[in-house]
Amino acid sequence: MVKDDRYFMKQALKEAKKAISRGEVPVGCVIVKDNEIIARSYNKRDQKKDVLGHAEIGAIQKANKKLNAWILEDCTIYVTLEPCLMCAGAILQSRIKRLVYAAKEPKFGAVESVARVLDNDAWNHKIEVTGGVLEEESSVLLKSFFQKLRMSK
Amino acid sequence: MVKDDRYFMKQALKEAKKAISRGEVPVGCVIVKDNEIIARSYNKRDQKKDVLGHAEIGAIQKANKKLNAWILEDCTIYVTLEPCLMCAGAILQSRIKRLVYAAKEPKFGAVESVARVLDNDAWNHKIEVTGGVLEEESSVLLKSFFQKLRMSK
Repeated sequence: MVKDDRYFMKQALKEAKKAISRGEVPVGCVIVKDNEIIARSYNKRDQKKDVLGHAEIGAIQKANKKLNAWILEDCTIYVTLEPCLMCAGAILQSRIKRLVYAAKEPKFGAVESVARVLDNDAWNHKIEVTGGVLEEESSVLLKSFFQKLRMSK
Repeated sequence: MVKDDRYFMKQALKEAKKAISRGEVPVGCVIVKDNEIIARSYNKRDQKKDVLGHAEIGAIQKANKKLNAWILEDCTIYVTLEPCLMCAGAILQSRIKRLVYAAKEPKFGAVESVARVLDNDAWNHKIEVTGGVLEEESSVLLKSFFQKLRMSK
């Protein structure tokens, strides 16, 4: 099996589905180094009552632990939804090499939708960004989650 | 004793000094609700090998725990250094009411120095920001830390 962006995004979508079964907004994330997944996580914000419960933050912390370092050089982060300001900042702070995401986030997306915070030459680190990988799959997952949520209310 | 911005920033500076004794960049933070400190933290990034070790993140997580909620409405966060992108994002996500900081951060400051990421009417939450409270005290602490670090190398 070819381990390309679509392959790793499918793994992130698997994580997102775990969030659904716990009643959380389905967002999943994996971090890849040398073509291997070194960390996986999904959104746990409400469950943990912790604003740091976003999928990206959980995955970054696991990768920090795995590598015993706060710098995640040569890593790629795959996330099913465009990162918010906090997560974009955490990705920048970690010096992750590449960010790949699926769906856009029209209200909080800080990479292209509401702001483009990573596009600033003054930062000491430049991240390669690819959006739209398996966008449709992620959007369908999110829409169906919110639809069910509305129906249950 | 009057519990004003200077009072709470002094408490944040106390936290920053704890970081020094552990060989970490001296940044400290307190979160205040109803005129009482509900969370304190200081920078532990290198010690914890965790990019989420910044003072603000530690304090936000403690406040989330204390209030058993990820929303920190009606809270003020005092931090001795201008927040980076990640921390500014975490403050926004937490819906903290007010941010007060001491010194500017010329390389990573995302509130006024390198970027002004909180100044975006598209965010669903507006934070009141006050910079420069006990700026001198915080700058002296930081400068003396880096001076000693250079001398020890």
